[in-house]
Amino acid sequence: MSASIGVWLVGARGNVATTAMIGARAIAHGATDTTGMVTERAPCANLDLPEVDSLVFGGHDVQDGSVVETAERLAERNGIPDRATLDAVRDDLAVIDERIETGTARNCGQAVEELADGGTDESLSLRAIVGDIQDDYERFREDNDLDRVVVINVASSEPLPADPEKYDSIEAIERALDEDEPLPASSLYAYAALAGGHPFVNFTPNAANALGGLRELADREGVPHMGKDGKTGETLMKSTLAPMFAGRNLRVRSWEGHNILGNKDGEVLEDDANKAGKLASKGGVLDGILDEDLHNRVRIDYTPALGDWKTAWDDIRFRGFLDTDMKLQFTWEGSDSALAAPLVLDLARLLAFADEQGESGLQPQLASFFKAPLGVDEHGLSKQFGMLEEYVEVHVAQPTAAGMEDDD
Amino acid sequence: MSASIGVWLVGARGNVATTAMIGARAIAHGATDTTGMVTERAPCANLDLPEVDSLVFGGHDVQDGSVVETAERLAERNGIPDRATLDAVRDDLAVIDERIETGTARNCGQAVEELADGGTDESLSLRAIVGDIQDDYERFREDNDLDRVVVINVASSEPLPADPEKYDSIEAIERALDEDEPLPASSLYAYAALAGGHPFVNFTPNAANALGGLRELADREGVPHMGKDGKTGETLMKSTLAPMFAGRNLRVRSWEGHNILGNKDGEVLEDDANKAGKLASKGGVLDGILDEDLHNRVRIDYTPALGDWKTAWDDIRFRGFLDTDMKLQFTWEGSDSALAAPLVLDLARLLAFADEQGESGLQPQLASFFKAPLGVDEHGLSKQFGMLEEYVEVHVAQPTAAGMEDDD
Amino acid sequence: MSASIGVWLVGARGNVATTAMIGARAIAHGATDTTGMVTERAPCANLDLPEVDSLVFGGHDVQDGSVVETAERLAERNGIPDRATLDAVRDDLAVIDERIETGTARNCGQAVEELADGGTDESLSLRAIVGDIQDDYERFREDNDLDRVVVINVASSEPLPADPEKYDSIEAIERALDEDEPLPASSLYAYAALAGGHPFVNFTPNAANALGGLRELADREGVPHMGKDGKTGETLMKSTLAPMFAGRNLRVRSWEGHNILGNKDGEVLEDDANKAGKLASKGGVLDGILDEDLHNRVRIDYTPALGDWKTAWDDIRFRGFLDTDMKLQFTWEGSDSALAAPLVLDLARLLAFADEQGESGLQPQLASFFKAPLGVDEHGLSKQFGMLEEYVEVHVAQPTAAGMEDDD
Amino acid sequence: MSASIGVWLVGARGNVATTAMIGARAIAHGATDTTGMVTERAPCANLDLPEVDSLVFGGHDVQDGSVVETAERLAERNGIPDRATLDAVRDDLAVIDERIETGTARNCGQAVEELADGGTDESLSLRAIVGDIQDDYERFREDNDLDRVVVINVASSEPLPADPEKYDSIEAIERALDEDEPLPASSLYAYAALAGGHPFVNFTPNAANALGGLRELADREGVPHMGKDGKTGETLMKSTLAPMFAGRNLRVRSWEGHNILGNKDGEVLEDDANKAGKLASKGGVLDGILDEDLHNRVRIDYTPALGDWKTAWDDIRFRGFLDTDMKLQFTWEGSDSALAAPLVLDLARLLAFADEQGESGLQPQLASFFKAPLGVDEHGLSKQFGMLEEYVEVHVAQPTAAGMEDDD
Repeated sequence: MSASIGVWLVGARGNVATTAMIGARAIAHGATDTTGMVTERAPCANLDLPEVDSLVFGGHDVQDGSVVETAERLAERNGIPDRATLDAVRDDLAVIDERIETGTARNCGQAVEELADGGTDESLSLRAIVGDIQDDYERFREDNDLDRVVVINVASSEPLPADPEKYDSIEAIERALDEDEPLPASSLYAYAALAGGHPFVNFTPNAANALGGLRELADREGVPHMGKDGKTGETLMKSTLAPMFAGRNLRVRSWEGHNILGNKDGEVLEDDANKAGKLASKGGVLDGILDEDLHNRVRIDYTPALGDWKTAWDDIRFRGFLDTDMKLQFTWEGSDSALAAPLVLDLARLLAFADEQGESGLQPQLASFFKAPLGVDEHGLSKQFGMLEEYVEVHVAQPTAAGMEDDD
Repeated sequence: MSASIGVWLVGARGNVATTAMIGARAIAHGATDTTGMVTERAPCANLDLPEVDSLVFGGHDVQDGSVVETAERLAERNGIPDRATLDAVRDDLAVIDERIETGTARNCGQAVEELADGGTDESLSLRAIVGDIQDDYERFREDNDLDRVVVINVASSEPLPADPEKYDSIEAIERALDEDEPLPASSLYAYAALAGGHPFVNFTPNAANALGGLRELADREGVPHMGKDGKTGETLMKSTLAPMFAGRNLRVRSWEGHNILGNKDGEVLEDDANKAGKLASKGGVLDGILDEDLHNRVRIDYTPALGDWKTAWDDIRFRGFLDTDMKLQFTWEGSDSALAAPLVLDLARLLAFADEQGESGLQPQLASFFKAPLGVDEHGLSKQFGMLEEYVEVHVAQPTAAGMEDDD
Repeated sequence: MSASIGVWLVGARGNVATTAMIGARAIAHGATDTTGMVTERAPCANLDLPEVDSLVFGGHDVQDGSVVETAERLAERNGIPDRATLDAVRDDLAVIDERIETGTARNCGQAVEELADGGTDESLSLRAIVGDIQDDYERFREDNDLDRVVVINVASSEPLPADPEKYDSIEAIERALDEDEPLPASSLYAYAALAGGHPFVNFTPNAANALGGLRELADREGVPHMGKDGKTGETLMKSTLAPMFAGRNLRVRSWEGHNILGNKDGEVLEDDANKAGKLASKGGVLDGILDEDLHNRVRIDYTPALGDWKTAWDDIRFRGFLDTDMKLQFTWEGSDSALAAPLVLDLARLLAFADEQGESGLQPQLASFFKAPLGVDEHGLSKQFGMLEEYVEVHVAQPTAAGMEDDD
Repeated sequence: MSASIGVWLVGARGNVATTAMIGARAIAHGATDTTGMVTERAPCANLDLPEVDSLVFGGHDVQDGSVVETAERLAERNGIPDRATLDAVRDDLAVIDERIETGTARNCGQAVEELADGGTDESLSLRAIVGDIQDDYERFREDNDLDRVVVINVASSEPLPADPEKYDSIEAIERALDEDEPLPASSLYAYAALAGGHPFVNFTPNAANALGGLRELADREGVPHMGKDGKTGETLMKSTLAPMFAGRNLRVRSWEGHNILGNKDGEVLEDDANKAGKLASKGGVLDGILDEDLHNRVRIDYTPALGDWKTAWDDIRFRGFLDTDMKLQFTWEGSDSALAAPLVLDLARLLAFADEQGESGLQPQLASFFKAPLGVDEHGLSKQFGMLEEYVEVHVAQPTAAGMEDDD
């Protein structure tokens, strides 16, 4: 695919965004390979996706600093990227830094607002904020001569809106904007993207495009979008393991998950309001796979010594034949950013592709990427992979008119 | 399905066989439920399978003792079954004990032969042994007025034949029988079953029906059969987890598995010759799912303090984006017999069904039950479950002539 | 020691008390051995302690029911005791049941008060409650012709008093009793014991005899006492492991402990007020051993599927030479009652012995039994064991006048 | 202590030796701190030990290469040391490289001999080899104007001698040297050191100075020495945990230890002959602490993906009150070299001090450093720490004549 694709990251100076940009540019320079990218292996590798090295990055953030500074800090504290890789991409990151605009932390909760450096001008109306965001998207597109811009939210966790049902129609959203109701920042970014025709991905547990009114808007505008909450660690494991218990008719009695993590994401989650959304999407996966009534608890604790690493310890008690109580325990230790970053690139490519194909609304073939895939009831990972496989089969076998033109 | 089905268990006084019979009879008496049985949930629950409480049990063993004694020992040492359940089925087990015949330990390796009580009369020819086995099958059928007999091997691990390729044709098998070549006991049981038209399942890592000549025999005789090595614990986990790594393009660099177990199975596996077959089927699963060249080691150690319980500790190192090395560790603690027993009942039912449908040869829809499914390359558990789902869909939607008659 | 010793258990129908009584009586009947009892091995085995089989049991509880019922429930749900052991002691437990009196749940927090069956008559003054308790102690002594009564608190966790410093003198305690200030039940039991000359042990995290005024009272009355919070699982591990890190100059950066448990103790701890005391004594151990400023968090969660079992998962990050970050993780799985019960018997014997020797006040030689040993700064387990060894050496080598008379 | 101390490392280009030298020089340059060094905290910090930054290093190795190359490889593969530290010491390491001599791999087993680059000239007699070694020690001393030289063996594991009892006297050793019997290299280094009056430490599981004849030699020559097998990981944990089980009268029924490691040490241990010594010293610790007859197995496996890191997984089953079976599992993940290196520096300082004090023969106060401390029956870590504390108390309180002179 030769179209010129821009990737606009909300939370651009955060760990996930920075790692995604480091990786894309390191791949471009041949300084690393594409391990961890779903789109670089079968079946997706057969699609005509935009090249990783052609992606153009920009984004919003509410904290001062720079992508280069974040990258330096990641290299020093976590050793990811290593020095050689950082050296290979530092200049590219500095160029990207020129394209980062100040975003909004409106209604993101106290924990996030405290992190924001001058990003929450309380005198602005929601309409004014949305207008600024849309201008930022457009300027990025024009300045870089892009065919399309995919907006991906990788910002910190916000508190969920008190009454999300309230925003179930386009009208309700528009009225909320007019009357400065407490719509969270994530939904402002989503509105600005969808109204402007830009494909949108919510990689966070935030409300964003999950609100009914925004889904209606995407359908009306014919824009593809998807979310929510990238599935990278403990929940990835849950969606892998739970179908095994179900398939074998083993009844899970309790599933205790204890997560400890040491990065800014963890710090924000110390605030219970911000944590609520995360816990909701993490906890829901099991209910979607297992029939039985089980004790299902998820703990997330901030442990600074872990840096950008996350350790999940899960204790699963299940009952088998002759009332035999058995158990499984696992410890997952991963770098949060290194797990999430390649998926951000995957989603940018796949959503750009979907847009090119003229697809609109929710994109269920992307369910495997998310803890709480919008509009999809299937939570088992293998079946979600199957949905992606089927999508690829259709699009490799029957290129659309748009797809064929693109090959010229 | 109203046909009368016999289940002949090779290793009938062992833990797995005994637990299967306890469970079936306890279900018949309403003393336990069917948790752990795959055939009692969707999709299989939609098939017209023989009822669990109608199954008639018999079998071979090479050790003296009785099923009742094994059951008492299991209750005392492991608490499975509990006392109430044991009391409910003791009389039924005593009836089954009348139907247990002395089997053969020919070519089962020193560890098994030492356990055998008078079961290895070295003066007998293989033809004589096979003849005795066939007589036992027939007598069981006649005495109990059975429509069909399914033979299931749940005996101890044997050493694998030195050169299995040698037995790739029916002729080679027949010659080996004529010339008393060192065919292992498992293959003698399999031969006797298949030649006699009895469906056969190999739940062990032994050679049994995996030899080419026996597969040819099953095809010629039109008998359904399947194996090998029931997938109950660590390997079940491997076939669940490995597709996750593959699907996410995460490269597994090493997978160390350390199993400790305390039952007779473990004692026999202390002998390296007997362990070899087990290690082969446990190790092969990863190679069938993961492309990369990985360090793949499985240890099995006998730890008497564990009784019938097995603990698997697996340490998995994988590499992700930007060369990030991450890891997953799990501890699985299960009762070997309680995990295996319901699958034995499932296989008896599903193989009796296949036989009723007139199907013959290997039964790939049963792949999910086995560590090394004969004739099936797919090792991912979810995809294997998918094969079973498809089979059920076909057989629910389009009952065969035989199936319809059966409903009369 | 031939004196007749009574053991009065506060929380007598609870799991720990019941298990202690089952064990003592099972030992008396030869139905189990003394594994798990510290006093039955070197060095304590050399002391002239009261025989386990001679101990006479009684106690308070606020819940209806009986010791026999608790024992039945433990046998059924946890398999501890097993049936044969329960059968051996059932009659003895029924006799003990006759000696259980209704206690008080005054100021124990809502979670405990909800469990109480008519035990919190709000119209009673504290003086009246204390009077009733003292009468119960005396009647137990007289009815059973006992030389001494040791009172051991094994009741549920209470909220800690808001301002414990306030009760730093005997006068403050007396005034609080006169004026019905919110002294917790545990301190009422302790007051009644110490004022009456009965040795007292607090096996719970409750305030009890930790209040300054009660310690003064014990000194004045010449009564030996000790506490608090029996060290049975995760904290036992901490006091074992932390000295290793200290001795090797490895700096612990974070110690995350996650406990899941399924018994009534866990249910009561679901209430944050009740949990606070427990967390305080669990957390303090590390501070007593490790100099460094570390991230030290303890989680306790109620997971019904575990029954009386407790699983602790601890994740410890430490820094070594050349700033190398390393880690230790452990999983401890024990039956709470089976771990605590033998220590209750040990403490009864050792405190009766101390009383016999004419010792009074806090008994530091018992530090190894407690999470937060009163009056002892040493938290390392081996050094605490050393204190007990030294005590035994002194008392074996130089019997006091009282001790010698006792031998007559 | 102002004396000039040389540290001669056998296996000088290996990971442990190199890390020790990096650390000592990094401390000298202020590039790291002394975390992990036992001698830098109480009680040892109160002794008048030689300064870390004054230690002069030299050594033997059988492989070509250089300390600088080993350091570069460690930095690249394990990130220890980090780049800044390596840069700070590179020049110092290059100076040390000038003092590394070619050693001997005589009777070290095939695995080590294959690693040796020209170090096993089979034509040399043992007397000639020993003479060369002694010349190397002497030249090091003279060239660097050293007051004393401490020799520390940190070479790879050798097979143990078939009949170590045979070498129980000085005469037997001398005859073995005369007659070229298969004395292992470690014992040749030890002989050369002790005969020459150089304090000697065996940090490996090799025979070295454990042979009776060499212990006799040390006594005769008045040289302090100690060993064997540095206690750094799993065995450190065992000697920490086992006293807890013993002290609480909990009976350990099985202790399974599974170690996986990825460095050259692991590669050499793939050879069963070399592994035997290691397993012996690892396994013996429990027998020294626990009375009961337990199932005690240690596995060591080579897993290249781990690099210099070692993961130990231990599964411990123990029985408590009322025959309750419980368990503890732990996972220890450490950098082998980072754990061992500071102890090497500690031992050099403490042995130089002992020599200065005129002490000779085995040094039991150093027991805590070793898996199998020569001449010491106490295996509990805390009690071993206690021995060191007592030693320090004596030597701080009562400086010997030699010690006082030294202060002049």
